[in-house]
Amino acid sequence: MPANILGERFSITSFGESHGKCIGTIVDGCPAGLKLDESDIQPLLNLRRPGQSVITTQRKETDQVSILSGVFRGYTTGAPICLIIWNTDSDSRSYDEIKNTPRPGHSDYPAYLKYGGFADYRGSGRFSGRLTATLVMGGAVALKILSKYLNIEIISYTQAIGNIICNTDNISFDELSRKRYSNDVRCPDHEIAIKMKEDILVARKAGDSLGGIIECTTKGIPPGLGEPIFESIESELSKGLFSIPAVKGVEFGSGFIGSSLKGSQNNDIFYIEKSSGKILTLTNNSGGILGGITNGMPLKIRIAFKPAASISMSQKTVNIEKGVETDLHVKGRHDPCVVPRAPPVVDSIVGIVLLDHCIKCNLIPPVLKELHSN
Amino acid sequence: MPANILGERFSITSFGESHGKCIGTIVDGCPAGLKLDESDIQPLLNLRRPGQSVITTQRKETDQVSILSGVFRGYTTGAPICLIIWNTDSDSRSYDEIKNTPRPGHSDYPAYLKYGGFADYRGSGRFSGRLTATLVMGGAVALKILSKYLNIEIISYTQAIGNIICNTDNISFDELSRKRYSNDVRCPDHEIAIKMKEDILVARKAGDSLGGIIECTTKGIPPGLGEPIFESIESELSKGLFSIPAVKGVEFGSGFIGSSLKGSQNNDIFYIEKSSGKILTLTNNSGGILGGITNGMPLKIRIAFKPAASISMSQKTVNIEKGVETDLHVKGRHDPCVVPRAPPVVDSIVGIVLLDHCIKCNLIPPVLKELHSN
Amino acid sequence: MPANILGERFSITSFGESHGKCIGTIVDGCPAGLKLDESDIQPLLNLRRPGQSVITTQRKETDQVSILSGVFRGYTTGAPICLIIWNTDSDSRSYDEIKNTPRPGHSDYPAYLKYGGFADYRGSGRFSGRLTATLVMGGAVALKILSKYLNIEIISYTQAIGNIICNTDNISFDELSRKRYSNDVRCPDHEIAIKMKEDILVARKAGDSLGGIIECTTKGIPPGLGEPIFESIESELSKGLFSIPAVKGVEFGSGFIGSSLKGSQNNDIFYIEKSSGKILTLTNNSGGILGGITNGMPLKIRIAFKPAASISMSQKTVNIEKGVETDLHVKGRHDPCVVPRAPPVVDSIVGIVLLDHCIKCNLIPPVLKELHSN
Amino acid sequence: MPANILGERFSITSFGESHGKCIGTIVDGCPAGLKLDESDIQPLLNLRRPGQSVITTQRKETDQVSILSGVFRGYTTGAPICLIIWNTDSDSRSYDEIKNTPRPGHSDYPAYLKYGGFADYRGSGRFSGRLTATLVMGGAVALKILSKYLNIEIISYTQAIGNIICNTDNISFDELSRKRYSNDVRCPDHEIAIKMKEDILVARKAGDSLGGIIECTTKGIPPGLGEPIFESIESELSKGLFSIPAVKGVEFGSGFIGSSLKGSQNNDIFYIEKSSGKILTLTNNSGGILGGITNGMPLKIRIAFKPAASISMSQKTVNIEKGVETDLHVKGRHDPCVVPRAPPVVDSIVGIVLLDHCIKCNLIPPVLKELHSN
Repeated sequence: MPANILGERFSITSFGESHGKCIGTIVDGCPAGLKLDESDIQPLLNLRRPGQSVITTQRKETDQVSILSGVFRGYTTGAPICLIIWNTDSDSRSYDEIKNTPRPGHSDYPAYLKYGGFADYRGSGRFSGRLTATLVMGGAVALKILSKYLNIEIISYTQAIGNIICNTDNISFDELSRKRYSNDVRCPDHEIAIKMKEDILVARKAGDSLGGIIECTTKGIPPGLGEPIFESIESELSKGLFSIPAVKGVEFGSGFIGSSLKGSQNNDIFYIEKSSGKILTLTNNSGGILGGITNGMPLKIRIAFKPAASISMSQKTVNIEKGVETDLHVKGRHDPCVVPRAPPVVDSIVGIVLLDHCIKCNLIPPVLKELHSN
Repeated sequence: MPANILGERFSITSFGESHGKCIGTIVDGCPAGLKLDESDIQPLLNLRRPGQSVITTQRKETDQVSILSGVFRGYTTGAPICLIIWNTDSDSRSYDEIKNTPRPGHSDYPAYLKYGGFADYRGSGRFSGRLTATLVMGGAVALKILSKYLNIEIISYTQAIGNIICNTDNISFDELSRKRYSNDVRCPDHEIAIKMKEDILVARKAGDSLGGIIECTTKGIPPGLGEPIFESIESELSKGLFSIPAVKGVEFGSGFIGSSLKGSQNNDIFYIEKSSGKILTLTNNSGGILGGITNGMPLKIRIAFKPAASISMSQKTVNIEKGVETDLHVKGRHDPCVVPRAPPVVDSIVGIVLLDHCIKCNLIPPVLKELHSN
Repeated sequence: MPANILGERFSITSFGESHGKCIGTIVDGCPAGLKLDESDIQPLLNLRRPGQSVITTQRKETDQVSILSGVFRGYTTGAPICLIIWNTDSDSRSYDEIKNTPRPGHSDYPAYLKYGGFADYRGSGRFSGRLTATLVMGGAVALKILSKYLNIEIISYTQAIGNIICNTDNISFDELSRKRYSNDVRCPDHEIAIKMKEDILVARKAGDSLGGIIECTTKGIPPGLGEPIFESIESELSKGLFSIPAVKGVEFGSGFIGSSLKGSQNNDIFYIEKSSGKILTLTNNSGGILGGITNGMPLKIRIAFKPAASISMSQKTVNIEKGVETDLHVKGRHDPCVVPRAPPVVDSIVGIVLLDHCIKCNLIPPVLKELHSN
Repeated sequence: MPANILGERFSITSFGESHGKCIGTIVDGCPAGLKLDESDIQPLLNLRRPGQSVITTQRKETDQVSILSGVFRGYTTGAPICLIIWNTDSDSRSYDEIKNTPRPGHSDYPAYLKYGGFADYRGSGRFSGRLTATLVMGGAVALKILSKYLNIEIISYTQAIGNIICNTDNISFDELSRKRYSNDVRCPDHEIAIKMKEDILVARKAGDSLGGIIECTTKGIPPGLGEPIFESIESELSKGLFSIPAVKGVEFGSGFIGSSLKGSQNNDIFYIEKSSGKILTLTNNSGGILGGITNGMPLKIRIAFKPAASISMSQKTVNIEKGVETDLHVKGRHDPCVVPRAPPVVDSIVGIVLLDHCIKCNLIPPVLKELHSN
């Protein structure tokens, strides 16, 4: 399969570069009959786009999406949907220096070797975090279908920034959903959010950066998604999530902590919910996944983002043409912390992967019918 | 792509069930000209097979591999290689009970729903950890090619069992490689290994189980493997690693810990090694991967295994036919901790994924030539 | 995708060699709940196997299929189904000569170059027509599902042997179905069949061989299978059909003849069938496919088989080691004409491709329910 | 794999509709370092575009290609290349009528059923022959790489229009190459070309259409491309060629005629070319392919195009909303014969498929070096 694709039955193909003409996505496999226009996609893009607050990069991109194909008279046709954003504020001057002096923590050095010096290095080119907007464009389509036709909701939010951690164990899904976008850092706890923002501003002032952790949970996931072994839903989700630049760790349910527990502690006990007669588990250490298959409980995923590699402090590096060590002072406009812009990206990846598997399980018909309450 | 495949240019297709006639693997894409017989595969299988020590399950399987196709007069032909192990000690009597009473922590419940009651539930059937032997068969072929033709070595070892953690930061690759198989738990530190074994035996006696962490590192990985975004080498490796039953977390380099660091701490500084003139990094928080592409430093991966779901203690569950809650006492022969058997599996997954990408990067010729020192 | 696979949602992976230990197939994507044992597969294999009559090779292979995985208590489980045939009558003595003197019309020469001399050349190894049995094993499963759950019937038969052509235009589907296996050449017209057989026996006596044409038609194909452009149902079927060794041409509907007609002659006029109210076409020059999508009319495919390359007559060739021209007299047991053994193979390919697309169109549920009349 | 993709290592993804905003292609897998701008692609598009002569449709589309991504400072970067053509002359008025009255020979009817009435029916939408321009954009890139780095040339030309057939057996490759574009019908024989054009004009005047046959041959194809069975080079090429709307037959070498020959006639005898020492065959009935693998001889492919379904004559059809039979008089601007515009499309498909396999065989490095003589 070509390298720039995620998904099989519902898939996205990403193209474009940070400082090129545009960035874009081809959505393939979207069923015919979905009501779709740009307003279904723009809000999620807006939640990711730069320049939203003082803690994000000041690059001015409106990230206006245009639908170029696959929609006719307001409805999807079953043909591939091309979604595009024209780059408007690409200031490439500051990147000439990095051509031969790879920035620590960035893709510059391996990209130079891999592409023999031909890679577009401006603003990290193809490796830029800006490309996550191509994931969000496709994700918005997937999330609309999941929500409208299967009542599946996926929400991500900031659980940690640097050393500030938000305990989300006792916050309900609805509260998480309502509060996560109520502050700049996208954390469902307001007081913690204030501390997080302070720490980001401190790091920014120091020319430094911070990382953090995004947590993702869901509502309405049907049991049975995923396949044993190579298409375990963990395999599929992690493949997508590690596509996000800066992600260096993914865990499901009790994850790394769970590895230190005993089986009798970590196993989730089945019980029958009185009111509904449904079979549920008392705890959710499995993160909603047993044997690689969803079990009907909410997914619980934690995703570790490294601190942004772009910092303004002087760093040592190597001039690869001259073969000497040198000091590097990276200019340009950076995010001191990318985590607050990541929830729409994580939502998108999880949505695309889950929709792909819902289609494989026949849960989505080849032609969608308009529902009464839209 | 069909669900039971890992890899594109070098791939394995897994088949079989824990208590069926056999388990097997099709290796597709192995170049012609590789000297190969069963003795290239059996040693890695032996390191994974049950019944090796007092801390593994007592199921007696010799796991003898047979090559059924793709090898002619001692060399691979370029045709698919079918590798098979006949099951010999499958005692299925103890599994009748679980048909309708799903075991906590196991795939039983979602498998029942997904396959409408038709899944082979004996010994977890297709979901059994036994299926990791099919990964090892393919992995042994990949690891031989990587080692012999590219001098790439991949080693995994136990870094934690329950709460016992081995600090491996200051152990050299060669020492890790030499010591890891010198004890039953596969930990490169003998004293720590003794404590780990004790804890496993305690858990076993209690009818309980433990989890742990496998660490994987490498030698000789060329820079440039992986593709931006969806085929980042982290995406590819994590997809493979989450195929292993019981794996619930994967991190690269500084991983989750790195998310709490500052950029100035986490960025790895480039320098030029005096003796070789090579460009290296002072630290390896990236785990050998920048922008999803290998940078020539060793890979560093940590994989969290949950405690084995099979425990002998009584557990609550639900009888899904009768719709009532019930007590379950699982019989059968279990591993109190699967981690000690996991290193060959992790080596195999990492080897298969890396070889696939080496082939994509033209590092392996379509026909292999015999080397002088074999 | 690995090279030895056909299909995506329902797929087969072929392995084995003509004179190796076995030949086999992995069926992936078969829904759980299908009643399946060897007796569902053996009859179709018997119609393909060698030694059925005086006009086929005298190699004695009973081609007994064994199910090694994926079936539990008589029903498919959703796991991959491994089907295997052990080779029993492989006489490899006669093939030593061809190692360095490639047979005209065979794969020997390009296989030698492609695999650097490592290919298994015995009986054409991986390139042997014997491998079509691996397609038939998977095809039998597909055909059972199509017939039982969608009432789709696929039939192939011999339309031409050498210069003897059977006009099948006015023979009904039921008559074609009933008569095609009533004679050794698999032609639905008895008198034509007699002439065909005579010509094959004449060719055989002369140490020569004949080719021919297989026609395939169907009943019950639903409209809407296939995708525009790259997954046109013609693309998908032709990819599968050209996998059969000896096939050198494929046409749909009026095919090559149609290219000499005018649009007004070739267009199929739509009308409404009085009795059923169904929309049908008066003619079927499209072969049941418009725009790459099935239109509900029967498929009509013609497949050209070249004369078998194996002939006993002396032929000129080249000794590739010595670099000199030489005479070659191929011994061994050959089919003077492979066409009579091809109908089960064509049925199988068409069945696999159509089932794959029926699954993509949600026409087959993930779990099959047993039907009353089996 | 998503449906709108051709190729694996070098691939194209097609998007857009005949009367939508644009049509486009994503080229994935193009190695870094190829000198590329629009002038490498435009000439091949010009040979396909409408309005070139009196025998093509009078729709005025300049088909100007724009490169939107994947090229930096004149060279490919290894990132996906987005190529786009903005539609400028889409007159959709005449298509309202066909919404409910499917045109005979067109995709209208199955598209209506498949997409539940949501398909863009204007100018056949996604099924339009106009989409072949998306294949040509990708093909131009492939053909440049093949020609420049491997000296592979692929040429297609008109061999038949209706009943007028050009015998090309004794025309050399260079002459075919030189003469094929010297006339409007793209036939290498001038006198035959005049007759062909006359017949097209007669058909046009009658409101009718003609079909024909494109022949494709090559120079410089290396031996060893393709894989046994499912990735036979015939399988791969036919899959691509049947993606072209109107193609209903494909044959290689002696094809359908060959099926009536004897083995002793059809087998191609190997000999050693005195001047070069190369192993060649006296005849080329195999069309350069043995066992599904290229043997170093020129490819020879014949592709049957049905007469264009769009004719101006009155035709009977059915109103699918009202469920009654009706007369249809299709307006709009049509090609009376699409064959003269097909050679660049066939060249493109063959080029894309062959380059994909050359990459799989390591014949193209991951980074291209600029050659001296360009």
